[in-house]
Amino acid sequence: MREDFVIKGDICFSLSANELITREDSFLVCADGKVAGVFDKLPERFEHLKLYDYSGKLVIPGMSDLHVHASQYAYRGLGMDLELLDWLNTITFPHEARYEDVDFAKKAYGIFVDDMLKSETTRACIFATVHVPATIALMDLFEKTGLKTYVGKVNMDRNCADCLRETSAGSAEDTRQWIEAVNGRYENVRPIITPRFIPSCTDGLMRELSDIRARYDLPVQSHLSENLSEIEWVRELCPWSESYPDAYLKFGMLGGDTRTVMAHCVHVNDEETDLLAERGVYVAHSPQSNENLRSGVAPIKKMLKRGVKVGLATDVAGGSSLSMFRAVTDAIQCSKLRWRLSDDSFPALSMDEAFFLATKGSGEFFGKVGSFEEGYEFDAVVLDDSMLKTVIDLSLRQRLERVLYLSNGRGIEAKFVSGTKVL
Amino acid sequence: MREDFVIKGDICFSLSANELITREDSFLVCADGKVAGVFDKLPERFEHLKLYDYSGKLVIPGMSDLHVHASQYAYRGLGMDLELLDWLNTITFPHEARYEDVDFAKKAYGIFVDDMLKSETTRACIFATVHVPATIALMDLFEKTGLKTYVGKVNMDRNCADCLRETSAGSAEDTRQWIEAVNGRYENVRPIITPRFIPSCTDGLMRELSDIRARYDLPVQSHLSENLSEIEWVRELCPWSESYPDAYLKFGMLGGDTRTVMAHCVHVNDEETDLLAERGVYVAHSPQSNENLRSGVAPIKKMLKRGVKVGLATDVAGGSSLSMFRAVTDAIQCSKLRWRLSDDSFPALSMDEAFFLATKGSGEFFGKVGSFEEGYEFDAVVLDDSMLKTVIDLSLRQRLERVLYLSNGRGIEAKFVSGTKVL
Repeated sequence: MREDFVIKGDICFSLSANELITREDSFLVCADGKVAGVFDKLPERFEHLKLYDYSGKLVIPGMSDLHVHASQYAYRGLGMDLELLDWLNTITFPHEARYEDVDFAKKAYGIFVDDMLKSETTRACIFATVHVPATIALMDLFEKTGLKTYVGKVNMDRNCADCLRETSAGSAEDTRQWIEAVNGRYENVRPIITPRFIPSCTDGLMRELSDIRARYDLPVQSHLSENLSEIEWVRELCPWSESYPDAYLKFGMLGGDTRTVMAHCVHVNDEETDLLAERGVYVAHSPQSNENLRSGVAPIKKMLKRGVKVGLATDVAGGSSLSMFRAVTDAIQCSKLRWRLSDDSFPALSMDEAFFLATKGSGEFFGKVGSFEEGYEFDAVVLDDSMLKTVIDLSLRQRLERVLYLSNGRGIEAKFVSGTKVL
Repeated sequence: MREDFVIKGDICFSLSANELITREDSFLVCADGKVAGVFDKLPERFEHLKLYDYSGKLVIPGMSDLHVHASQYAYRGLGMDLELLDWLNTITFPHEARYEDVDFAKKAYGIFVDDMLKSETTRACIFATVHVPATIALMDLFEKTGLKTYVGKVNMDRNCADCLRETSAGSAEDTRQWIEAVNGRYENVRPIITPRFIPSCTDGLMRELSDIRARYDLPVQSHLSENLSEIEWVRELCPWSESYPDAYLKFGMLGGDTRTVMAHCVHVNDEETDLLAERGVYVAHSPQSNENLRSGVAPIKKMLKRGVKVGLATDVAGGSSLSMFRAVTDAIQCSKLRWRLSDDSFPALSMDEAFFLATKGSGEFFGKVGSFEEGYEFDAVVLDDSMLKTVIDLSLRQRLERVLYLSNGRGIEAKFVSGTKVL
C-alpha cells in the first residue's frame, strides 16, 4: 500500500480556466494517492505523515500531453521547412517504417520515455506506429516509469508509404491481438484505438476498429482538421459525410460514449465546434506543431466559450519540443498572432487559461487529474526556479509565469503520479 | 598580441540568405583575430598553430543580437498578458526607474551580462536606461566579458513616468557627459545614441541628439513601427512628417551616413520598406517580442526581397528569452503564421534564411562579422549537441536544425570573439 505524505512548498493550481490559485509556503497532503487538501498550516491529523520539504520551490499539478508521437521523437526538430503532407511523406513515413525492427524501436523509445520521465509531463496520449511488437515494447518501457499513459498501435491501410501500409484485415487482426496481449497487463499503461486519420484508413477498417473499440470499451485518439489540404482530401474520400468530424461521428468515433481525443481541430467552423462540444470530444491543441507545419492556429478561445473540452499537446514531432511548458506559452503566443493577424472576435489566451489547459483541461481526459482540489489524483511537479536569477521581488504568480516562459525543462526536482514519486 | 590558432570541428556558416555551408570534420583557422579560412585538410603553413580539437562538435559563427534591453532582463517573462503601451506603463517604467540606484543596477546588470556571456551571442546592440552612472556600470561589466557591444544611455523627455522623464536640456547634457566619459575608454564596448522612440523624445531633443551623434560620429538605435497605436501616436506627434520612418529621417537618424538599427518595423508599407532599403537601415527583427506584445509579424521576406538589411534580435524583455537560437526559430515560426493567417504573397522564412539573419545579417552592423569567410572577424561558438539523443544518423545540416530548435542554451562549450576565447 502507498504511503500517505505531505509536500511543503509554493503551490499553484487551477480551479477553472480563469481561477488560478497560488498558496505560498503551504502544505499539500496526499492520502491514498489522492489530494487530501492544501493548507496554510498543516492540520494536526496529518502531522504524523512523512514530509517532503520543498520550501521555496514551486509545486504545480503534473501536465498531461494529449497528443504525442513516440516514434517521431527520434527526428524531432528536423524537416521543419516542410508542410504537413510533404513532411509525412519525406520525413515521417520512411522513419516510422524502421520500428518494424523491435531492437531499433526499444532504443529509440528508450530515449523518448526517459526524456518524458524527466519532463513536467505526468500523463500522455501517445501514438506508436503500426507495428505491434514495437508498440508493446513502448508500453513495457512506460509501465516502469510510473507515468500514466494511453498508448496506441496506429492503423493505416491506405494512402501511405508501401512499407507502412497494412491490409485492412491484417490491421484489424493485429489490433485485436495487440489488445488481447496488453489489456489489463499494466498498472500504468492502457491501450487506445488509434486510426491515424481518415485519409489513411478505409471505411471498412474504420468500421472494424469501431467494433473492436466497443467490444473492449476503449478510448479513441486520432487527428482532425489540421490542414486545409487534408480537409479537402477527406471531403473527396468520404463524400457521404457532412464534414470531417461527421465522418468520425458516423464511424462511432467522435465522443458520446466513446471517450475521444482529437488532435488539432485548427480549421473548424461554428457548427463543427458545437458538434465537438455536444459530443464531449477532447481537443488536443498543439500550437507549435500547427505553427511548424504551417497549419494555422485553432480557435481555442471560441472553443472554450462554446463548451468544448480542450487540452494541450506537444505533438512531437510536428512540434519540436517535448515540453508542456513550451506548449503553454506557444498556445498564448499563437493565440496572440491569431487575434492580431486574422480574427479579433476573441481575445488571446491568458497565462491562467493556458496553464489550466495543460493541467486540468488536459487532465480531465484521465479522470480527476490536473488540479490540487480535494479528491484529485496526486500528480505533482516540484520546480526549483532559482536558476532564473533576478534582483527583483516576485509574487508566486510571477514566478510561475517565468517558469512557464523560461525554464526550458530545467529545475524539475521531483515528480509524483497518483501519489507515487517517479522522479 | 593575440595568438593565432586552429579549431577542428563540424563547421556551419552562411554565405548568403540561401547559401548555408556545412563542412564536417574540418579546420577553421584564426589569424590576427580574423578568419584565415576553412579547410578539409589543414594546410602545412598552419600546422604549427595551437589546435582546439572540437571534433564531433558544431562550430558556428557567433550570433549578434541587434536589440535588447539590459535593464528589462530582471523582469523577463513577466506581464506577458499585456500589450506594448500597457506593458511599458505597468511593468517597464516602474522597474527602469530603479536603475537610478547604481548598486541595484550593478547587481541586475551583472546577471544579464553573465547570462549573455554564457549564451550563443557574441555581439549586441543594447539599451540601458536614462541613468548615466548605471549605463557606465553596464559598459564596465561588458568590457570585461570580451563580448563586442554597443550600449546606449536612453533618452526620454516626454510621455513616460515622471520618475524617468528627463528635461530636454538635461537629457542632452547627460548624453554629452556620458559620451565624453566613455568614448574611447573601452576595447569592446562603444556608445550608441539611443532615443527610446519618437513618442518619448521631443523634436528639440531629437535635434540635439542628432547634433551630438554627428559630432562624435556615433551610430543610432531606436524603435520603429512596432505597434499600430504607436504609429497613430507618432502621426499625431509629428504632423510635419510623411510617415514614422520619415520623422526619424528628418532628424538625420535614419541611415545614410548615420549607421542606424531600428527595432521591429512590423507595420511598414512598400514605400517605407523601400525607404529603409535606400537608407541602408538595419532592421532588428524581434519575432518573439512582436508575438508577446501582440504587435504582429514583420514582413521580413519582403524586406529581404526589396534589399533591406535585416538582422535578428531577442528584444528582452518584450521577448522573454535571451537565446538567439530561439529568435531564429521564432522568426521561422512567426513567418509561417504570417503566411497562413494574413499574407501569402511571400513564403515563410527557411531555416537557412533565419540562420543567416542571426549571424551574417545581424553581424554586418558590426563590420565583417557573422560568417567564416576569409577576413571575417573570428566570432565562433562551439556546441556539443550530444544531449539531443537520437538513434538515427544525422547530416550536419540536420544537427544544426536540431540545435536551433531544441538546445535551449544547453551545450555551449566555447566561444570566441575577434579571435579571443571568452568562454
